[in-house]
Amino acid sequence: MAPEVQACPASVLAMDRDDPLAEYRLAFELPAEVAYFDGNSLGALPRVARERVSRAVELEWGQSLVGGWNEHDWIGLAQATGEKIAPLLGADAGQVLVTDSISVNLFKLICAALQMRPGRTRILTDALNFPTDQYIVQGVAELLGPTRVDLEPLPVGEIPAALDETVALVLLSHVDYRSGQVHDMRTLTAAAHASGALVLWDLAHSAGALQLTLDADQVDLAVGCGYKFLNGGPGAPAFVYVATRHQAQVQQPLQGWMGHAQPFAFDASYRPAAGVQRFASGTPPILSLTALHAAVQVFDGVDMQQLREKSMALGVLCQQLIQARDSLQKLTMASPLEPAARGSQLSYRHPAAYEICQALISHDVVADFRSPDILRIGFAPLYLRFADVWRLVDTLDRVVSAGEYLNPEFKARQRVT
Amino acid sequence: MAPEVQACPASVLAMDRDDPLAEYRLAFELPAEVAYFDGNSLGALPRVARERVSRAVELEWGQSLVGGWNEHDWIGLAQATGEKIAPLLGADAGQVLVTDSISVNLFKLICAALQMRPGRTRILTDALNFPTDQYIVQGVAELLGPTRVDLEPLPVGEIPAALDETVALVLLSHVDYRSGQVHDMRTLTAAAHASGALVLWDLAHSAGALQLTLDADQVDLAVGCGYKFLNGGPGAPAFVYVATRHQAQVQQPLQGWMGHAQPFAFDASYRPAAGVQRFASGTPPILSLTALHAAVQVFDGVDMQQLREKSMALGVLCQQLIQARDSLQKLTMASPLEPAARGSQLSYRHPAAYEICQALISHDVVADFRSPDILRIGFAPLYLRFADVWRLVDTLDRVVSAGEYLNPEFKARQRVT
Repeated sequence: MAPEVQACPASVLAMDRDDPLAEYRLAFELPAEVAYFDGNSLGALPRVARERVSRAVELEWGQSLVGGWNEHDWIGLAQATGEKIAPLLGADAGQVLVTDSISVNLFKLICAALQMRPGRTRILTDALNFPTDQYIVQGVAELLGPTRVDLEPLPVGEIPAALDETVALVLLSHVDYRSGQVHDMRTLTAAAHASGALVLWDLAHSAGALQLTLDADQVDLAVGCGYKFLNGGPGAPAFVYVATRHQAQVQQPLQGWMGHAQPFAFDASYRPAAGVQRFASGTPPILSLTALHAAVQVFDGVDMQQLREKSMALGVLCQQLIQARDSLQKLTMASPLEPAARGSQLSYRHPAAYEICQALISHDVVADFRSPDILRIGFAPLYLRFADVWRLVDTLDRVVSAGEYLNPEFKARQRVT
Repeated sequence: MAPEVQACPASVLAMDRDDPLAEYRLAFELPAEVAYFDGNSLGALPRVARERVSRAVELEWGQSLVGGWNEHDWIGLAQATGEKIAPLLGADAGQVLVTDSISVNLFKLICAALQMRPGRTRILTDALNFPTDQYIVQGVAELLGPTRVDLEPLPVGEIPAALDETVALVLLSHVDYRSGQVHDMRTLTAAAHASGALVLWDLAHSAGALQLTLDADQVDLAVGCGYKFLNGGPGAPAFVYVATRHQAQVQQPLQGWMGHAQPFAFDASYRPAAGVQRFASGTPPILSLTALHAAVQVFDGVDMQQLREKSMALGVLCQQLIQARDSLQKLTMASPLEPAARGSQLSYRHPAAYEICQALISHDVVADFRSPDILRIGFAPLYLRFADVWRLVDTLDRVVSAGEYLNPEFKARQRVT
């Protein structure tokens, strides 16, 4: 027998009432019946993004046609969107550009780092890094060959000891996509610099949820995702960060016309644009870019420290509520215990994590599964309520204690993300 | 004094009345006042694209959230769109994938060609090729160095004689973006193959307007544009074509998770997906991709030979009408005289081509300028009318014979595309 559905306690409702960021939920279109804990896979739809995309299609494309490049500044949209993202990263102006995907941008920046560190061949990376990061660096290594690239996947804890004057680049994700562990950006960056290496941080699970201080941390290069906590829509373009001090000398091999100093002069030879614009390649996907540009406006006026505090508070509540339920003791915490040491997520191991996740979804409580056995609960602090966390745990209790997840239909369901 | 505006002659109106493709214009949203001769820079908005993007934002993203990857098959959308494009290229199924931009795709395919022709270092390309094609191949050459890549820009006519067993790849645009000249795909491909080289064709100004026969011509590799004659919207993603016979052995270095055999198994090592899917890299921009997927549906039922015949007829009419006007004799034809030898455009040289183009636009007749002195008139045969051509020439006559283009406001206007 499933336990009775319990009313959300007054103490939890009070947390929402006292939440200084509560009003930001109103900026999003959220299905009324859904409690959404997968904003770290795909952020919810900001109302302003819906309006702006509609206008971009009907008026900008439909009425201005090719004139839209000037009249609606499509040509400047990638840089303008980068400038809106920069403050969320702790970055001054002129260092962030929206372009391509994380995968493609990693390729550009890895090659750029090798070019800035001639003679150094080693690239150190987290052996647990997100797959696409690993695949791309493998692709660079295969393309350039062992005389130019020597790739070493290591546990992050072993990276400082492995650093020496042969290391060109340290490539790390700030937040581990499975466990949610936050790696110490400042310390690891300083360690890399002490041996003359560059750092490239993947901010996919950080940007828009954590307080970032890229400039202060002396980060060299970074990439990040437009469609997770930035809410830019499915497959929104990604961003690159290139510290100002590197921009004059850095090159990247995907040198398309949008990264040229004068794209419409149609020169036969490539001359890189000034600044971060040289990391552009082809023509950006304006409709998807428009959605992201609108979505990041929602962050106007958001205090990132306050946002991070809410993100941690959501996680702490979730952890406490799970601990308090007898039925949920077989969920093993896979995230760091210390709230500040984890990103905006909690991960639990369970042999039936996949089926449990599917059962939750059948109750409109959307969490995520990560192979092989991780139930991943993401907290998008701009629109999640503490009452949603209560509902998640209460539903989880019903699903597990009643053995609902054993229903074969959940095993059979296909999920792709 | 500007000449009187002349009524469109009955003979021209009859051409529209007899046009078997006339009804396709109804599939597009076109501003009533505009005659649009720049569909080869940015295609017009198909009504179905407007509807589909609206649905993708409001229902798919807004209501299904991350579930959209399954429920609305976002995950298969890039391949599904490729399969819709394939028949327009004369390609059987399984060879076309929509992904990234032309620039990024050129990089992938150039590296793939070098990998398929080990020991060969020369890449021959048209010295007049579109800038991004030249920049990307320069980028590959700089990244891999002279021992692996020896880049030779040549006039296309000199390419056959330059072929030998040291050539890995011939990289050409099918239609020259300035002059509109069509290069002979079958003959040049056969010449390259005779020396054991591969060919990579850029179809930016061909796909959706010309009759293409990639399979029959034994083409190895191709890229093409989603936002020109395919009407996929500003910056729509591009496509790649990889002949089936090459797919099992070909690799490409931008090996992101979307090109992995099992993207959601989160393996630490890259294993390429079967077939053309391995040319995917990161997550595709779903809103922009949705617009393109919808747009190519407009081609359902279109006979590409009939479309090409209309495209040539529009060009022939334009050429005849220009020839017949005394004021336009200083426009020098920069396109081949033979209609079959040019793409879906006519280019004229004039020292004041920029100002003339701007003056045309001020009359809502939208043509294009290409540096340094080319007035480019594109014919998108799905939605252009013969009466539009009449209006273009009549307006051109007024602009030139009255010296209207000498107004300094036209010189000062900035255009970016």
